[in-house]
Amino acid sequence: MFHLHLQEDSQAPFYLQLYAQLQDQIREGKLLYGSRLPSVRALQTHFNISKTPIETAYQMLIAEGYIVSRPRSGLFVMNELQQSIASGDDTATRELISPDNMPPLPIQPKPIIDFRASRVDAAAFPLRLWRRSLQESLESHALDLGAYGDPQGEYSFRATIADYLQRSRGVHCAPEQIVIGSGIRYAASLLARLLGDAGTLACEDPGFAPFPDYFRKWGLNVLPLPARHIAARIGNTDAGAVYLTPSHQFPTGSILSYGDRERLLQWAYSRNAYIIEDDYDGEFRYSGKPIPSLQSLDRAGRVIYIGTFSKAFSPALRLNYLVLPEQLASRLKTERLPLDAPSRIDQWAMARFIEQGHWFRHIRRMRSLYGKKHDRLLERIREYFGEHAAVTGQGAGLHIQVSVKTNRSAADLVKLAADQGVAVYDLEGMLADSGGSGAADPVIYLGFAGLTEKQIDDGVRLLRRAWETALQE
Amino acid sequence: MFHLHLQEDSQAPFYLQLYAQLQDQIREGKLLYGSRLPSVRALQTHFNISKTPIETAYQMLIAEGYIVSRPRSGLFVMNELQQSIASGDDTATRELISPDNMPPLPIQPKPIIDFRASRVDAAAFPLRLWRRSLQESLESHALDLGAYGDPQGEYSFRATIADYLQRSRGVHCAPEQIVIGSGIRYAASLLARLLGDAGTLACEDPGFAPFPDYFRKWGLNVLPLPARHIAARIGNTDAGAVYLTPSHQFPTGSILSYGDRERLLQWAYSRNAYIIEDDYDGEFRYSGKPIPSLQSLDRAGRVIYIGTFSKAFSPALRLNYLVLPEQLASRLKTERLPLDAPSRIDQWAMARFIEQGHWFRHIRRMRSLYGKKHDRLLERIREYFGEHAAVTGQGAGLHIQVSVKTNRSAADLVKLAADQGVAVYDLEGMLADSGGSGAADPVIYLGFAGLTEKQIDDGVRLLRRAWETALQE
Repeated sequence: MFHLHLQEDSQAPFYLQLYAQLQDQIREGKLLYGSRLPSVRALQTHFNISKTPIETAYQMLIAEGYIVSRPRSGLFVMNELQQSIASGDDTATRELISPDNMPPLPIQPKPIIDFRASRVDAAAFPLRLWRRSLQESLESHALDLGAYGDPQGEYSFRATIADYLQRSRGVHCAPEQIVIGSGIRYAASLLARLLGDAGTLACEDPGFAPFPDYFRKWGLNVLPLPARHIAARIGNTDAGAVYLTPSHQFPTGSILSYGDRERLLQWAYSRNAYIIEDDYDGEFRYSGKPIPSLQSLDRAGRVIYIGTFSKAFSPALRLNYLVLPEQLASRLKTERLPLDAPSRIDQWAMARFIEQGHWFRHIRRMRSLYGKKHDRLLERIREYFGEHAAVTGQGAGLHIQVSVKTNRSAADLVKLAADQGVAVYDLEGMLADSGGSGAADPVIYLGFAGLTEKQIDDGVRLLRRAWETALQE
Repeated sequence: MFHLHLQEDSQAPFYLQLYAQLQDQIREGKLLYGSRLPSVRALQTHFNISKTPIETAYQMLIAEGYIVSRPRSGLFVMNELQQSIASGDDTATRELISPDNMPPLPIQPKPIIDFRASRVDAAAFPLRLWRRSLQESLESHALDLGAYGDPQGEYSFRATIADYLQRSRGVHCAPEQIVIGSGIRYAASLLARLLGDAGTLACEDPGFAPFPDYFRKWGLNVLPLPARHIAARIGNTDAGAVYLTPSHQFPTGSILSYGDRERLLQWAYSRNAYIIEDDYDGEFRYSGKPIPSLQSLDRAGRVIYIGTFSKAFSPALRLNYLVLPEQLASRLKTERLPLDAPSRIDQWAMARFIEQGHWFRHIRRMRSLYGKKHDRLLERIREYFGEHAAVTGQGAGLHIQVSVKTNRSAADLVKLAADQGVAVYDLEGMLADSGGSGAADPVIYLGFAGLTEKQIDDGVRLLRRAWETALQE
């Protein structure tokens, strides 16, 4: 048995005592890489305490990357994480240890290869440059650390973003129109307030559900429309606003045509309606000429543009921005809407990162990296599935969509894949309505940004194995 | 004289004409780096217009980094900003150009000594240790940078906070009850949703207005009660929740008595009501024994506790937390309320900072530092004002309240102080109702955390000078 001892008279609760002792023993190498830890039940019997403190301690160690839970085998010491990071050999353990999306207690097995669309490539994060930006910002703004900043976002950062957007996405705006935020929830909560009197919000079906969900939670009316026909149908509705992902529709990956963009703008002009353009992965286009952003085509201040640093940089930073038409930007002020910008330190650091040219270099690098992964995924699907699968939504963004020729349902395919240790996703939770995706064959979508090329190879191979019988039915 | 010309028949207002011409001349190098600009008065005389458009144009140029204002010298062209950023030589101009904290239009002489309560001591920020925490967190979590975190906050950080709160504030909670946020707006928006069906929100008058304001903006009912009698009066209202600052009432600085705490808890038990305890500066108590937090006295899960890193650490970081009773914590999950935690990197860094013991050392250091400033301020007020002023709300927190024996209004005193270059604050904007503070003499509150002891000395001396005639009336 491990040398663990709990003191009843200690100031520290049991879970912290357990956590600290296990952590120490792992750090000091007393518990070796790969060692199996006693089960929750075994420790419970041994100490005669409830299982909550034991589960809490284990959960903390998992969250911090000290131990890992393997399907149907138990908990294992994984302390080589540190070592592998230092040596750059991060492929072995990376997918095993993912504290981010830990299920709530009790601990459950995790798949090994995860085609989750929200992941990006952590190994490509510009760690050294970002650390330096943070450091320089802390130093040069040392005297500002005692004060609250502008709740709309640091003015200098907004000016930097305005310049960047003009150059890279054709978005025209003044710093006064930009609101710095911490993610799509913040954007949605602010827009629900600003557009509360605009009437119904139309949205794409299938689509990114959390955004319209926020509107619904605030008691506003939401109308899902088939994503492919949204420009044609919206004129026949009472919508006063529409939420769209035109650069690379989520999740189908289709790109809104120039004609549809103009049609939507005409609708917005004639109805005084607003178009919310979520350009979540607009930086990534691997072939062809990018279609201009809706905001850049707008001649009447009807487009609200949302951009993010989550895809091209890191979702861990929680940094995004809204570009409001002038009219809405002044309503922000007159109605004194509650604003709360994220860390000033991060804003200063990102402004510096962009101003020093690192951002453009980083984007170029990521575009090439993700372009390779994108091509690799398409190649492998062709190789392993041939006529059995059809890819759509490729050529841009960080995920594709695959329709698989089988009688099975998408949910079945997800389950079969999970049994082989591969996580793939169907449209569940993305259908805002019962309208459906309109596709005959089941549709699966695959994110590739967070996987290595080797993992993409293995993942597609395992998918073929997982779906072998389904394809023959 | 500069070549400026204003056209009365132009579509552009005067301020935009001035702005555009000055900006062009700076960009084109016609106005050289370091050139002194004409004073507002000089331009006013020259053009025979009001000073507002001139001030506006100058303010815009300052905000955008084209010009800079130097104390007692004037306005200077600073267009090398771009150039110095590009060449990496950014130390020379960096501190001069800080558009982030620009006062709102119109330009006012910036006070030299600002007793603003929201400021903290930037010079005491543990820059080196925080930089190291950030750096170590980035390295040890490098592989997590590609993924979204738990929107409720990183589990390990929540566990660390739970342990800290238990030890320092007697707050009992599990990590599952903690929600990490970015400030009081986030806390208010979440609570407005969670308590939306609790009925009227009672709040302190005078009090911290933004919190109840958020509730009002969401269409909820708000009932201000006199801060001193809130425990006695709340039983006669239909309130289903109350927002309080019991450790050091904002802004009066009074401390809620033990008896009143028990009375409020009894009220909450009997009505199934909620008490929102905003412990914004609970770390700072300079004498006597701290009264236990309301949360620590709660035996029925009726207290919601709000803590922040803005006062003890830095308001620039935008990091705070909510502790929910278990029942509300599970409603978070079942109702799938929109959550959005701040930067994971900051959360990891702060968890590490606390776990390594730096936080406790920092708090002790800050308590001693602020205790000295607090004592100094009280001494100086005694010395310069004697019987003319009475201090209340001392002994805790980062601000005190002074009632001044004069016939003048508090607004007059603020103005007289500003004329001497000292910014002090009255209760304007803090009276939720017309109930008033109940004080006979005008009341001013003074924050001391952001000032040096020397500035405190000078500030009080200047206040005496500013109010000399007012005291004799």
